[in-house]
Amino acid sequence: MQTKKRLRDYGLNPGILPTGLKNGITDVDGVMVGHHTIHDGNSIHTGVTIIDPGTEALFYQKLPAAVAVGNGYGKMAGITQIQELGTLETPIAFTNTLAVGPVMRGLVNLTLKNHSDIPAGDSINAIVGETNDGFLNDLHADILTSDHVMLAYNNRSQAVQEGCIGAGTGTRAFNWKGGIGTSSRKVMVNGQEYTIGSLVQTNYGGALTIMGVPIGTLLQKEEFSQWTPMVGDGSCMIAIATDAPLSSRQLGRIARRSFLALGKTGSVMAHGSGDYAIAFSTNRAGVEGSNLALNLLSDEYLTGFFLGAIEAVEESVYNALFLAETTVGRNGNTLEKLPVTDVVNLLEKYANR
Amino acid sequence: MQTKKRLRDYGLNPGILPTGLKNGITDVDGVMVGHHTIHDGNSIHTGVTIIDPGTEALFYQKLPAAVAVGNGYGKMAGITQIQELGTLETPIAFTNTLAVGPVMRGLVNLTLKNHSDIPAGDSINAIVGETNDGFLNDLHADILTSDHVMLAYNNRSQAVQEGCIGAGTGTRAFNWKGGIGTSSRKVMVNGQEYTIGSLVQTNYGGALTIMGVPIGTLLQKEEFSQWTPMVGDGSCMIAIATDAPLSSRQLGRIARRSFLALGKTGSVMAHGSGDYAIAFSTNRAGVEGSNLALNLLSDEYLTGFFLGAIEAVEESVYNALFLAETTVGRNGNTLEKLPVTDVVNLLEKYANR
Amino acid sequence: MQTKKRLRDYGLNPGILPTGLKNGITDVDGVMVGHHTIHDGNSIHTGVTIIDPGTEALFYQKLPAAVAVGNGYGKMAGITQIQELGTLETPIAFTNTLAVGPVMRGLVNLTLKNHSDIPAGDSINAIVGETNDGFLNDLHADILTSDHVMLAYNNRSQAVQEGCIGAGTGTRAFNWKGGIGTSSRKVMVNGQEYTIGSLVQTNYGGALTIMGVPIGTLLQKEEFSQWTPMVGDGSCMIAIATDAPLSSRQLGRIARRSFLALGKTGSVMAHGSGDYAIAFSTNRAGVEGSNLALNLLSDEYLTGFFLGAIEAVEESVYNALFLAETTVGRNGNTLEKLPVTDVVNLLEKYANR
Amino acid sequence: MQTKKRLRDYGLNPGILPTGLKNGITDVDGVMVGHHTIHDGNSIHTGVTIIDPGTEALFYQKLPAAVAVGNGYGKMAGITQIQELGTLETPIAFTNTLAVGPVMRGLVNLTLKNHSDIPAGDSINAIVGETNDGFLNDLHADILTSDHVMLAYNNRSQAVQEGCIGAGTGTRAFNWKGGIGTSSRKVMVNGQEYTIGSLVQTNYGGALTIMGVPIGTLLQKEEFSQWTPMVGDGSCMIAIATDAPLSSRQLGRIARRSFLALGKTGSVMAHGSGDYAIAFSTNRAGVEGSNLALNLLSDEYLTGFFLGAIEAVEESVYNALFLAETTVGRNGNTLEKLPVTDVVNLLEKYANR
Repeated sequence: MQTKKRLRDYGLNPGILPTGLKNGITDVDGVMVGHHTIHDGNSIHTGVTIIDPGTEALFYQKLPAAVAVGNGYGKMAGITQIQELGTLETPIAFTNTLAVGPVMRGLVNLTLKNHSDIPAGDSINAIVGETNDGFLNDLHADILTSDHVMLAYNNRSQAVQEGCIGAGTGTRAFNWKGGIGTSSRKVMVNGQEYTIGSLVQTNYGGALTIMGVPIGTLLQKEEFSQWTPMVGDGSCMIAIATDAPLSSRQLGRIARRSFLALGKTGSVMAHGSGDYAIAFSTNRAGVEGSNLALNLLSDEYLTGFFLGAIEAVEESVYNALFLAETTVGRNGNTLEKLPVTDVVNLLEKYANR
Repeated sequence: MQTKKRLRDYGLNPGILPTGLKNGITDVDGVMVGHHTIHDGNSIHTGVTIIDPGTEALFYQKLPAAVAVGNGYGKMAGITQIQELGTLETPIAFTNTLAVGPVMRGLVNLTLKNHSDIPAGDSINAIVGETNDGFLNDLHADILTSDHVMLAYNNRSQAVQEGCIGAGTGTRAFNWKGGIGTSSRKVMVNGQEYTIGSLVQTNYGGALTIMGVPIGTLLQKEEFSQWTPMVGDGSCMIAIATDAPLSSRQLGRIARRSFLALGKTGSVMAHGSGDYAIAFSTNRAGVEGSNLALNLLSDEYLTGFFLGAIEAVEESVYNALFLAETTVGRNGNTLEKLPVTDVVNLLEKYANR
Repeated sequence: MQTKKRLRDYGLNPGILPTGLKNGITDVDGVMVGHHTIHDGNSIHTGVTIIDPGTEALFYQKLPAAVAVGNGYGKMAGITQIQELGTLETPIAFTNTLAVGPVMRGLVNLTLKNHSDIPAGDSINAIVGETNDGFLNDLHADILTSDHVMLAYNNRSQAVQEGCIGAGTGTRAFNWKGGIGTSSRKVMVNGQEYTIGSLVQTNYGGALTIMGVPIGTLLQKEEFSQWTPMVGDGSCMIAIATDAPLSSRQLGRIARRSFLALGKTGSVMAHGSGDYAIAFSTNRAGVEGSNLALNLLSDEYLTGFFLGAIEAVEESVYNALFLAETTVGRNGNTLEKLPVTDVVNLLEKYANR
Repeated sequence: MQTKKRLRDYGLNPGILPTGLKNGITDVDGVMVGHHTIHDGNSIHTGVTIIDPGTEALFYQKLPAAVAVGNGYGKMAGITQIQELGTLETPIAFTNTLAVGPVMRGLVNLTLKNHSDIPAGDSINAIVGETNDGFLNDLHADILTSDHVMLAYNNRSQAVQEGCIGAGTGTRAFNWKGGIGTSSRKVMVNGQEYTIGSLVQTNYGGALTIMGVPIGTLLQKEEFSQWTPMVGDGSCMIAIATDAPLSSRQLGRIARRSFLALGKTGSVMAHGSGDYAIAFSTNRAGVEGSNLALNLLSDEYLTGFFLGAIEAVEESVYNALFLAETTVGRNGNTLEKLPVTDVVNLLEKYANR
């Protein structure tokens, strides 16, 4: 997608399942991703990222969905309705922590615009995830508005841009520059091939580990050596899409596995990290009353999706780090780009077994 | 408080515990309530209500708190952080369903204004509850802004106005006009007297029952006779305050009892009703690390608070109905005021035993 | 069923929905209930009650199910597997608090006996609810064994015995003698009639309220006048069955409404009360992978089931009280039977409006 | 402790925090572990393991505790009371899946024996975890009785035996022989040193990864190459002890991190794996009403405990595998011991960076 290189472009292949064609969340048919970035070259480095499931009549043709909370120190909006009803009725937006409000209203406005016939009294459940980009960005500034949601939505496509863009513009990961990353896996169950993909907004820390190799320690970017309270803080927002016919309960089981991937990258889900995963299926069979539910997969087939989700989330994190760029932000605060050449050398030595 | 009459002004005394002096949430020392109402006489009938715990340095001196979800078909913001950390760091706002976003941002701005020294990267967890006032109000209109939060906050006082005001301006309850209501109880445990108070935004339905008397049925305002899907819909937001030294876990136990009160008023927590309760204590002892925790109450003393919460929430609902006024709204939609005289006659006949 | 009289035998009809033919959980086609009672006339007054969904191949043809926890001060077994997988694979047993272990093993043995071809390594998730009958029964005595489960199972039938029998032998409710009670409702949604039924093991307290009338207060059996810690303690176990095609998520929504019924009977879900509800459908459509899910009901039709569940649970409690008999137990501890004649007089005066 | 070698005896040091003196859960002052093993040389290979917090008057001096459910396909007993009240009142027992019932009763009997003055009506909440040892053991046989709990308890000491003993006698891990393992870490926060230790009953699978090295793949014991439904099944029970003054809410945050450790060892928390963690503190300050709560740690200090828990659980798994021995069981089913020499060679090559 980008000219910059992702992890697999170096011949490094984490996990054992095959990826989809684009190795991104948009390998799930219909899914599109759009960004709007605000980068003023000074103290504002933030944005909005939209994950659009691609269902045209989404508000009426709700999709099965579930949310998992790894560490609830965050402000994600729209959770309890998904927990209660098991359905997604708007695109998903990621943004910065204090812009959740305006972005919620932006999703409402977007939905009203897309469906001009929504009855006057109907409510709309906007799904907004966030991470705190306050190291580089002036988080407290009231910059993002509901209108930016439409701009991000209008930019959506199947070619996902990664790194310092949209909601990943100002994020930090493992004391390097973080950002947006994506990946996907093919899962074969019961003689049928399905796709599962993820997109992450990386803004968390710990001891960066890539493919089992303790990169953070080897490059002396280890955050855990001193026990300051805020170590490893930040957050990770995770979106997972699949085309498999699954219920919201089953999608919840998948979403909860995402956090194992964070652990494999070196996170301990630190106190200050708001770690959330939202999973949805583009197959409406899982919605009760849809009259499509005949062929929902049995739970005994879920293990493949668990592995697929973990692998995709893990590689999404790596891609976010590989594609991010050194950024100077608020007060001259600077986050360096991951030293990719050094990292690749270490991975070739220790991970290419 | 108002010149209009509340339930007890008719000599009717639901429950067995004594009320606080004002029989309102502001009987809990320090707590204040403010409203901002938008009533254009035409299609806009909505507003914002703020419950301010009254702690000056609230963002730094967080209070123990908990949220309970009765029926999660709603958009309340700020829940998972309270579930994870057990603390409240902003006032609580109630508003209409699609204004949660702007009001979240309004609470952020209010907090930044009240505490000008919040470090640049700190996040703020805004607590916003909502109900859908779309029958009388043009819910989809993007009217409420973050600035209205400050207006409501500036109106706060210990004299709580009830009925069609603030977040209760456009609400419907049991097919009559709903609104804001409040009540309180004194609880005596372990030789010490504590206060527990509640404030509700009533926008739900069912078969109205007051003090055990099936008013809805007797007045032929029974919603359950026909089985249309939307019957009994709407929502109820509940705030509970106490001065007792309790932990967030204990406050969660109290919050979960609120829904029993809804049941006693005739609710079945209908499919479309978003029913949430947030409980907090003005006593910081329950916050780990506050160095104040020596005297937290043992759980065996909680039953009194359970009863107090249930009685206060139940009577808050009655007060909301007694104080609301007939309102004509969007498209001429009209909600009549509860026929108080008829109701009082029925209660005197059947409930004054 | 019994010669003793249930509430409706006095011409009193709580709620607004019609009951099933037997006004019991066995109105749900296939469901059977069996009891085994141990009543030694001295200090042992306990037993086991089995609710059998009636599916012959239950372990292989699992049913959709959900558990709701009102107040988790209890020892119910088998909960997390139902929460994770949404299925029921054994009959449900109720017993006393400290017999949950032996009864779990009894359900395992029963299942192995019923299905001799279960693969050697397969696990079995026994569902066992309990209440504490320690006022009348020598709770600590290790009397109930796994074999008693089979005896209760073998007694099962569609004619449910209520009152002091099985798991209700030694229970206390509102300081009167409690026991087992059952009831049912017909629910009409989307042009189709369904049945929902409940069975309760009543062992809790508060201020007994029947059909909105404060019987406990009127008969001066009010527990809340003095604030001793243990007031209102005990527990209530609730089983709900329906024949409607619903998913486990939807059954969970129904199960959570049960506690509103407890509130209407005068419970505050006191600190010491372990209040749990398990709901299941005899229609397998809600099990993912069953290839039967085409016609699951939409959530918008659930409100009728919410009302049906609340009414059935409420009336089950009344039936338990009406059918129980004065019992002298451990150390001469005595629980009087509800004074039914007085109660009926009060209900005729205040509830027959 | 044993003459067989643990991971660190080979000079391999996973993680970055220092271990306690014994590198086991008994480094937490007072904690003891006891096993009872049933190994009939034929089809019975099972047992009971007891973790005793060491508080003499445990039933009266309850300890703060929390349970986390990673994957709820299991039968662990006692969970909801811990979730509701946040306290532990019995030792913790681990056993096989279908022996949870008898072992619950065994813990009840043990508690009654240890505290002969428990009032007649008091209930006791037995905590019993389990994994399915049905590959080697005749799981369905009703062998374990309540009496075996006392035998395990009487064997308790601060020297923890690991491998094929007690509840680990028949378990399988990553297609090798699993068992019991333990480890600990020192955590320094706010100028004070605390200990956190864990004990695991390993019975799960996936792609075994040790210190980031994909041992399972390198030794061609990779379970994920073929997509059979049952791959990676089994379970992992985790107990975590600490001496830090923490509330049940905070212990819950720690317990939920355990599953990140499972992920690091190669688990995906497969469909069929019942993964649970119970965490407790030997410091009673976290119990409300204990009048000891003055110095509970602030949440901002928890990250160190998160890392400590993850490292201890991860290393506990390795120790379980290193200490287990090849076992022939039911029907000649055989599980080989982990080829330690080969593993150590691989770790020295790839993990000793």
